[in-house]
Amino acid sequence: MTTEALIQQIHKKNSFLCIGLDVDLEKIPSHLLKEEDPIFAFNKAIIDATHHLAVAYKPNTAFYEAYGLKGWESLKKTIDYLNRNHPEIFTIADAKRGDIGNTSKMYAKAFFEDMGFDSITVAPYMGKDSVEPFLSFEEKHTILLALTSNEGAFDFQIKEMEGKELYKSVIETSKTWKNSDNLMYVVGATKAEYLAEIRQIIPTSFLLVPGVGAQGGSLEDVCKYGMKKNVGLLINSSRGIIYASKKEDFATAAAKSAQILQQQMKTILENR
Amino acid sequence: MTTEALIQQIHKKNSFLCIGLDVDLEKIPSHLLKEEDPIFAFNKAIIDATHHLAVAYKPNTAFYEAYGLKGWESLKKTIDYLNRNHPEIFTIADAKRGDIGNTSKMYAKAFFEDMGFDSITVAPYMGKDSVEPFLSFEEKHTILLALTSNEGAFDFQIKEMEGKELYKSVIETSKTWKNSDNLMYVVGATKAEYLAEIRQIIPTSFLLVPGVGAQGGSLEDVCKYGMKKNVGLLINSSRGIIYASKKEDFATAAAKSAQILQQQMKTILENR
Repeated sequence: MTTEALIQQIHKKNSFLCIGLDVDLEKIPSHLLKEEDPIFAFNKAIIDATHHLAVAYKPNTAFYEAYGLKGWESLKKTIDYLNRNHPEIFTIADAKRGDIGNTSKMYAKAFFEDMGFDSITVAPYMGKDSVEPFLSFEEKHTILLALTSNEGAFDFQIKEMEGKELYKSVIETSKTWKNSDNLMYVVGATKAEYLAEIRQIIPTSFLLVPGVGAQGGSLEDVCKYGMKKNVGLLINSSRGIIYASKKEDFATAAAKSAQILQQQMKTILENR
Repeated sequence: MTTEALIQQIHKKNSFLCIGLDVDLEKIPSHLLKEEDPIFAFNKAIIDATHHLAVAYKPNTAFYEAYGLKGWESLKKTIDYLNRNHPEIFTIADAKRGDIGNTSKMYAKAFFEDMGFDSITVAPYMGKDSVEPFLSFEEKHTILLALTSNEGAFDFQIKEMEGKELYKSVIETSKTWKNSDNLMYVVGATKAEYLAEIRQIIPTSFLLVPGVGAQGGSLEDVCKYGMKKNVGLLINSSRGIIYASKKEDFATAAAKSAQILQQQMKTILENR
C-alpha cells in the first residue's frame, strides 16, 4: 500500500487508530475456546466490529509463535481475512526482525510476499545491511524501532552517542539508507516531549506510536508534538481495545473502546 | 542444558563447532526437492553426517519463516529430531528476537518450551525488560547480540556511547540484569582483535562466533584472543559446511568440511 492511500483512509475514517492484535488464549472470552481456531475467531470478531474505526491492524508475531504451528495458521488466516475483506486497511507485522543482509531478505519475503503484510517492524542494532533488504520492496514499509515505550528504552536508546541520543543517531543514519522513503518509525507515546525533536529530523515520516492508554501516554500530547499536515501518525492500542470485556460482549466492548479513541482523533483532526 | 554439560561435550568431541542450518531451497541438491519435506530431509542428512563433529546446531529462523507454515513444520521436525536422537547437543534458535517484557515472555515460551531449544539469540536495543524474560528460564541460555559480523555493525555497535563503544556498553549493562548467568554473547569473528577487550568484561561467558570462513574470520585469531580455560567459544559455520557440495554427496562433503574445522579445533585444544 502507498503512503498516499494510508493518508486517504485516515481522512475518510477520521481516524489514525491502529489496533494491536496481541491475542493471548488466557485472556480471551472462554466461550471462544470451543472454536476450532479460537485466535482467529477472536480476531475476526474484533475486525468485524472495529474495521470502520481503525486504519491499521498490528498482530505482534510473538503471540502467534507462542502457539507453534497452530499460532502461525491463525496469523495467516488473520492477514488473509484482512487482505480479502478490507484491502484498504494497513497491516503491520510487529515482528521486530533484523539480521545480516541475506537473512533479512528471507524475513522480508516471509512477511511481505508469503504473508502479504504491508509493513513490518525492524530492530536497528545490526545497521544498514540488516534493514535495506526490507526497504527494497515497493509499496511495502519498514517500521524501524527508534524510541520504544518500555522501561528498557532508557538502557541504550536515550544515551548519548557521538553527541546525540542513540535513537536520534538511528533515525538520522537510517535516512541515508537506500529506499529510505519506505521507512516509518516506532516512537513510544510515554515520551511525547521527544516527538518535537524527532520531527526536526523526520518532518513527514509516519510514526507508529505505542503506549497510549495502558502504558500511560497521552493522545493529546502525541498529536501536539508529532502531528503534521499529512497526519504522519498511527496510534496503537492493543489491550485497551481487544480486552475491553472478557465476556461474550467482547467485540461490542472493543468497538466502544475503539470509538472513544476514534472520536478523540476526529476532534483533533477537525480542530488543527 | 547446563553450561557444564556443554563444556563436557566440547572436551569429549574435541570440538566447539556449531553448524548453522540456514536452509535455502534454491541451494540444496535438486534431488531432495522430490521429498515430502525437502528442508527436513536436508537437515536430517546433515545432522546424521556431522553430529559427532559438532557440539551445537543453529537454525536461523528466517530461512524457515520464509516458507510459511511448511517452513515452521520443518523447523519443528528438525529440533525434535535433534532432541530425540542427540540430546547432548546444544541447540540455538537464531531468531534475534526482543520485545517489551510481556511479549518477550511469549517468545521465550515459544522457543524454550514449545520448540524445546536450549538457547535463542536476542537483540539488545530495547534493553533490560526485553531480555530478562528470556533469562528467567532455568538451564536455558540467551545469546545477546553484542558485536555482529556484518558491515552494518559499524553503524552503531562500535560507536562511542558515554566513553565506550555501544557493544561494550551492551555487555556491561547486561551483566547487571537478573539471572545474567544465563547470558552468552554473539561476537563476530571478523573483528577478532576486539575479543581481547571483550574478555576483560566477560572472562568466562560463552561467545557464539559467526563469520569464520565465508565471512573472512580466522579460527586461530578468535581462539588466541577469545579462548578461556572453559573454552568459552562456539564457532559457527553455515554455508561453508552445509553447501560444501550441491550434489548427491552433499552430506559426505559437509562432514568433510566439518571435520577440517574440528581437526583444527582439536589441535588448538591440545596445544593450549
